[in-house]
Parts: sequence; structure tokens; C-alpha cells
Amino acid sequence: MNKILIANRGEIALRIMRSAREMGIKTVAVFSEADREALHVLYADEAICIGPAPSNQSYLLGEKIIEACKASGAEAIHPGYGFLSENAGFARLVKESGLILIGPTPEAMEIMGNKLSAKAAALKYNIPMVPGTEEAITDIEEAKARAIEVGFPILIKAAAGGGGKGMRVVEQVTDFEEQMQLAVSEATSAFGDGSVFIERYVSSPRHIEIQVLGDTHGNIVHLFERECSIQRRHQKVIEEAPSSILTEETRRKMGACAVDVARSVSYVGAGTVEFILDENLDFFFLEMNTRLQVEHPVTEMITGLDLVKEQIKIARGEKLSYKQEDLKINGHALELRVYAEDPENNFLPDIGVLQTYNTPKGNGVRVDDGFKQGMEIPIYYDPMIAKLITYGKDREEAIERMIRAIDEYDITGIKTTLAFGKFVMQHNAFKGGNFDTHFVSKYFSAESLKNEDEDEALMAALIAVISLKKPDVVPIQNQVEVVSNWRKNRVKFN
Amino acid sequence: MNKILIANRGEIALRIMRSAREMGIKTVAVFSEADREALHVLYADEAICIGPAPSNQSYLLGEKIIEACKASGAEAIHPGYGFLSENAGFARLVKESGLILIGPTPEAMEIMGNKLSAKAAALKYNIPMVPGTEEAITDIEEAKARAIEVGFPILIKAAAGGGGKGMRVVEQVTDFEEQMQLAVSEATSAFGDGSVFIERYVSSPRHIEIQVLGDTHGNIVHLFERECSIQRRHQKVIEEAPSSILTEETRRKMGACAVDVARSVSYVGAGTVEFILDENLDFFFLEMNTRLQVEHPVTEMITGLDLVKEQIKIARGEKLSYKQEDLKINGHALELRVYAEDPENNFLPDIGVLQTYNTPKGNGVRVDDGFKQGMEIPIYYDPMIAKLITYGKDREEAIERMIRAIDEYDITGIKTTLAFGKFVMQHNAFKGGNFDTHFVSKYFSAESLKNEDEDEALMAALIAVISLKKPDVVPIQNQVEVVSNWRKNRVKFN
Repeated sequence: MNKILIANRGEIALRIMRSAREMGIKTVAVFSEADREALHVLYADEAICIGPAPSNQSYLLGEKIIEACKASGAEAIHPGYGFLSENAGFARLVKESGLILIGPTPEAMEIMGNKLSAKAAALKYNIPMVPGTEEAITDIEEAKARAIEVGFPILIKAAAGGGGKGMRVVEQVTDFEEQMQLAVSEATSAFGDGSVFIERYVSSPRHIEIQVLGDTHGNIVHLFERECSIQRRHQKVIEEAPSSILTEETRRKMGACAVDVARSVSYVGAGTVEFILDENLDFFFLEMNTRLQVEHPVTEMITGLDLVKEQIKIARGEKLSYKQEDLKINGHALELRVYAEDPENNFLPDIGVLQTYNTPKGNGVRVDDGFKQGMEIPIYYDPMIAKLITYGKDREEAIERMIRAIDEYDITGIKTTLAFGKFVMQHNAFKGGNFDTHFVSKYFSAESLKNEDEDEALMAALIAVISLKKPDVVPIQNQVEVVSNWRKNRVKFN
Repeated sequence: MNKILIANRGEIALRIMRSAREMGIKTVAVFSEADREALHVLYADEAICIGPAPSNQSYLLGEKIIEACKASGAEAIHPGYGFLSENAGFARLVKESGLILIGPTPEAMEIMGNKLSAKAAALKYNIPMVPGTEEAITDIEEAKARAIEVGFPILIKAAAGGGGKGMRVVEQVTDFEEQMQLAVSEATSAFGDGSVFIERYVSSPRHIEIQVLGDTHGNIVHLFERECSIQRRHQKVIEEAPSSILTEETRRKMGACAVDVARSVSYVGAGTVEFILDENLDFFFLEMNTRLQVEHPVTEMITGLDLVKEQIKIARGEKLSYKQEDLKINGHALELRVYAEDPENNFLPDIGVLQTYNTPKGNGVRVDDGFKQGMEIPIYYDPMIAKLITYGKDREEAIERMIRAIDEYDITGIKTTLAFGKFVMQHNAFKGGNFDTHFVSKYFSAESLKNEDEDEALMAALIAVISLKKPDVVPIQNQVEVVSNWRKNRVKFN
């Protein structure tokens, strides 16, 4: 493989190109008109414009990307995440065009892309599922009987739903009928389909996922877990590996289950099996993502493997160069997604120009980004600016380093999730590992970021000035500097 | 320990402050008038001006630094490397002032600061030394007899010399008298002292050093080796850990010797025992550096330990939290010192303004620096701009990553050692691990950097353009971009 095309943009396009470069493989970027000056375009060995800004006129046009690939002489396509990465039709098209997709087979994508077929595949290996109805129902009496079987609290979920719509938690059997009626009418008006699923409601769920790698020779291993329970708007914002809660035994069991799920579709490439974990460390299969995840770097930090390189080697037909027992967890890694969002305004996107943009450095800090100072965050795409990753010998050090790195990160011009990240890192529930996916709704509000940090710092600086006993060592103008230094520190460095 | 003063500047001052911050310790910077706008001043919680630019009027003034420390209320001083870091008199002054020096005792500094007393201490533990005379001699006949005992080739070395002055290699006994006479007269005129040492000449020497850590409770461990054989002007420029040549047995032996050398002076803190290694993997003690080394990050990468944090914990009186057998080498790390020097002009300093300055990022890349775009490299101090460190699962990956990171590093306005670093990384002798401290004189010349890289790149790009078969996919202006992309890539990114 001498040249690959990266069918993506932003940090993940750059991240893939870096690994390709290290392997001596040339890279081809594709870009929309909005991304003409983007870093992934500058970084690539070649770059080809594929259309206007909106994704459905550029990054989602499989045929155009394949044409660009052929025109450039690239032999393979890396889809990154998002866009076409889980599109079985695109995967098929790539194959039919005589090109290689750096990813799983179209068949595996198709099965895992559908909840019912994914469940059916996993069930062949007795993978634990959240107890509940296997088929959608509309009859209230039948639903109630099944709810009693499953055991309260239960969750009523619109069969045609998604993204939390048409969901209802029912704490006890006496409330069931009323809630079911509401759910059915909500589902009917929202999706034109009133049928629902009933399942056990996990009241304190943690999102734990297992990274797997499969080669074309039938070998499948897992690279341990990532915990992604810190979410806002049902989307991950802070991830870590390993999880602070798993026992060795649960880790081993979940890993084995994830390998089985992958085996159920003869999985090839990098994939992720997502589970929900309850208070008793019982876990249930949610779904499989048939691509590289945003949060894959935390796995790279604790295993020492470069997942993009592993993907490329697998696509070249190479065997995995290690067995499950060779893989070990080493240290602890955290990732904060730095979004152009306003945490004090419900995490709504805050698009604009990066007036100042300086990234943190030093031991154990990695920043995967796709922007530089002066650039604009385009409105057309996901508003993620960067992934701030810290690594330490243990969780405590990774947290301390994340706080240090957040303080060093210097962004002005737009609002970001940086201060929110610091809030989480300093929160006792997070530090103690006692949290679930409800962390944000439970502990965070717009008020949370209005702390007295600045006043405290100013006071400490003033005390420091007053206590200076040697004016011959510290001239007047430097005393002023002592104060101002505190302020500068807070807002900018680098 | 709530607050420490960092008696240093540049990248090492910043690097120390980062670790202190992660430990929740406040930092005080000192600065000369030339460093008023330096990053270490901006990063610190407080900053105090201690005098004019020349080091002997600021960074070398122990008493002023101690005054600043007391004025700021800091309890301890971290000296970094260089400046006062190995000054026993300063160490004594700090102690007498009721402050803590984050470093070894004045006694250990004193013994290891003198070649003869260092040798005497090491000999108590039977540490191997380069065979040779133990005392300086002037008599030619006596010298010849000792030279025959030691065995040719031998090295004649002025007793009062240093930095390579008054040194002569003698290949065979028939040349001895003439060379000895030349050495004595050279030494007499240079140092006013004609006495010399005779020692075995190691024709293919490798510089291997062992990192040690000792606590105040008598525990001493080693953190394996660093190889620092790639030098220019007798100074290190590329370092790595582990060495590409050591066997497990030699590593174990050298480690044990280094711990013994440290034990001979009841060593406390972080220190480095330097050895010379010959073609037969026989090693000989050179000296001990009683401070943090420039190249300490490669050890941090392979052990997962933060050496500055370890130094601070030791200074707080804590016990080492691990035993020798708990320490393991994990992966491989390289460091390139990015100097403001011109490799095509004998590595002479090339001071000036950093017109462009963008650092590489991504998996396994760490940059420890003290500058930002627009800053000037001051003429008063060491011209090191940054340390570029890469980490990989093995040596090959660390090298590939170093090449990728060098390509990504974007510095204009001054000449640097970046291209030289790439030359070394791509050289077969380096890649194969077959090199010694003569690497630069053997393989490198001003011509080495005049490669055909650019022409090749342009040619490849032109071929790529010609082969574009789909002008509807790649509009004309993008074809031009395909070409220009290659050129931009070479000179700037980020």
C-alpha cells in the first residue's frame, strides 16, 4: 500500500495522515470548499476538492470520493469516523471499484448497523442483553405482563424512536398503564408508529465499551475497555481507560464477550462493542460501532498500540502481531473533547473564529486537533475543536495532568468545554469514581462554572506582595508583575 | 511543600513548573532582564527579577536567588540543570538559609564534582575504570612503561585539561615518545602544567549513562540507561532509551554499578552515572552528574515516572514508592535537541528571531520548549530551542515518528538541528544501531543536507498531476494545489 485517501476532515484526517506518514505511505486529502485552507489539506501529500461545504454535497458523496481515489492513484480509503465510515453501501462500492476500504466488511457493517440483526448475531454467543421484550408491542395488557416479568423499574421505548424520543421510565406497576398510554401516543405522533419495547431500566448506568481488533486470518483480540459515562446531550464528552470501576474479572468477562460479538460477524479491522454496566457490575450489550471511535487515543495510550497503523496493517492482510495474553494495561489515560460549545448555555454550539489558540504541552499531554489560531470553526460540521488527552502512571496523575493541561490551553473568541472539563476533574464524584451517565444532570449547572477561583487567586497574589520583605530584590515594577502574573495565567499562556 | 522557586530559565524551568502544578505546588520564577517576556515568567505563579542578562549577574547569583526565595515565601529551590545545579557552595548556602534544595547533598556534589575524588569513591565499590595511570606524570620513561602496561592504543590526556585540549591518541609504542613530548609541551603552554594521564584509548566508544534515584531513607534504584553517543562538538544532540546495543546482562551490570556509585556518596535525589562502553560491551565509569539531565524525558517515557515529581517527593522526605524489581522498560524513546545552530557551518550558534514557530503534535510526540513564535533566542544563554521527544512501541516506531515530527516542525528565521536530526534518523548506521561517539565526524558533512528530496517531491507531484484522469473531479486550480501542496509541506505546517 503506497498511497491512501482519507475520506474525512478535521482532527481525525490529520491523525490518520500522521500514522500513514510514519509508515511511509503517501496520503491524499479530500476537501469541501469550506475546508480549502484546513490543516488536513495542507498536511496531505495531495489534496482534491470534492464539492461545496454541506456534507451531502461533498464528504457524503461516496462516488465522488471513489473517483478522487482513482484519479490520485491511491489504493485504499480510510473513512475515519462519522460521514461514510459505517455506510455498508459505500463499503460495497469501494470493493466493487477494486479499492480497499480500511475497515470491516459491508456485511459486518450491515448486521451491526441494525439493532435487531445486531442483537440476533450477539445472541448466538449468549451475550447478555438488557432484559426486555424482543419484539415491539402495542397491546397494553401484554406490555404490562411483560413489564412485570422484567421487573420494575422498567423503560418504555418507542420501537421507531431514537435519541431519547418517546422514552418513559416507570418506577412501579401501578403507574404502568398511564405511562404506556402516554408513550404510545407520543410515539404515534412523532414517528407514525405506536409500538414500543419494554426493558429493564438501569437507574445508574455506566457506559463501558471494549475496543476490538480482528485480522483477515480470523484472529480477534480486545484492547480492554474505555469508560464513556460522562456525557452531555446523550453524547460522550470525557472518556477514560481503564475504567475506574471494573474488576479484573469483569474486565476479562466483558473482553471475552466483545470478542464473541465481533466473531459473530467475522469482524475484520478496528471496532467497538458498547455495553451498559449497572450498579452490580452486570453488563448488557448495547451495540457495535464498526469503525474507529473518537475516543480511541485513550486506548492507544494504555496499550502502546497505534490503532490507525493496526487498521492499515489489517487492511494489507497482515496478521495481528500479538495474542490476547501479550496485551497489558499500562498507566491511565483521559480524554476531554474540546467542543466549540457553551456549557453555561446547555452546551449549545458556539461557532466563531479562534482568536487565540495555543495548546498545552509537556509530559503526558497529547492534543489531537485540526485548527490553528485565526481559523474559523465551520458551521457545517461537528463543532469539536480538539481532543485533549492526558496520560499518567495512574488515574490520579492523569487527572492532575488534565487539570494542568486545561489551565494551559488558551482559546479565546469562542466558548468551549474546557472549563466544564476542569469542573468534572475537580468533582469528588468523578475523582472517587462514583458516577454514571447522569453525572451532568445530577451535578452540573450553568452556575457550576461561576466559582471564586479568580478572587482567591487575586487575594493570594496580594498577600504574596504584602509579604515581600526585600524591596532590593524585588523592584516595585516586579511586585506589580507578581500580581498580574496570576491573572495572565488564568487566561493565557504560550 | 506549598511553593517552590525554580532557579533556572527556558524549557527546563517550564518543565519543572508543569510537574509542580500537577502536584498542587505554587511556583516562583526568577528572571534576568533579558527574560522579562519569557514563557517561564508567564507560566509561574509569581516572578521575580534578579538582575541583568549575563548569567553571572543573575542566574548564577546564589545569594540573590536565596533572597528571592525568602521574599516569595517559597520553601524549596529547584536548580534545574546548568547554572547553579552542581554548585556545592550554593547547595550549602541554601541549607544554611533554612531552605530545601531539590537535589543531592553538598557533600555528594563536591565529591562527584572532582574527577579524582569521584574516582576514589567509585573504586571503593570496584566500579570498572578505563585502565590507566591513577596519578598525573611528567617523566617520559615512566609514562612509556605505564603505556605498555595499559596496552595500545592509548590516550595521553593533560591533567589540567578539559574539553579535548592537550589530548593525543597513540596507536603504537614506537610513536609514544614523540607524541608524549608534544602533549606535554601543549599542556604546559595551554594550562601551565605539563603533567598528563595515560589511559586506554577506546576507539569506538559509546556514551551510556544510567539514571539513578535515591531517597533520604537509603533506598537507591536505577531507571535503566540512556544512550547519548550522537554528539557534535563533544556535546550530546540525540539521546535514546533504551540503548540499541545493550544486552539484558550488561544492562543489569551497569545498573548495579551505577547504584553502587550513588551509594558511595549516600546519594539523595536524581543523578546520572556516565559510562563509556567499548566494542566488547565492556564499560568504564566516567563521571556522575549530580542533577537532572537535559535528556531525562526519554527515561520518563520508558518508565512512566515523572522525574521532577520524584525529585520533589524525595526532597519532601518521602520514600521511593517502588523497588528495583518493580521497574520495567516499556517501549522506546528518542530525543533530538533542537538547537539554534547551523549544521552546515560546523554547528555554530545561529541566534535570531523565531519568525515562524509551530511544533509537531500527535500520538507519541512530546515537545519541551520555552519559546513561541516571534520570540528571540537570547545570545546570553544556551541556544537550545526545544527538545523533541518521540515514543514508540519499539525503536523502529520511535524513529519513524521522529522523522514525521521533524517534518512537521516548522521553524523559520534561524537555522536549527532539525534537518541534521532527520539525516541521523535516516542513516543506516543509526537505524542499525552501529554507531559510536564518532558518528558525526565519520558520516556527517555540510554536504549531507543537500539532498535531492525537494526535486524528488516535485517530480512525484508532477507525475501525480499528469496521471489525473478525471478533470471533472479535480478542477484545474486543484491540480495546481496538488503540486503546491508538496512544497508547502516541506516548509510549513500548522
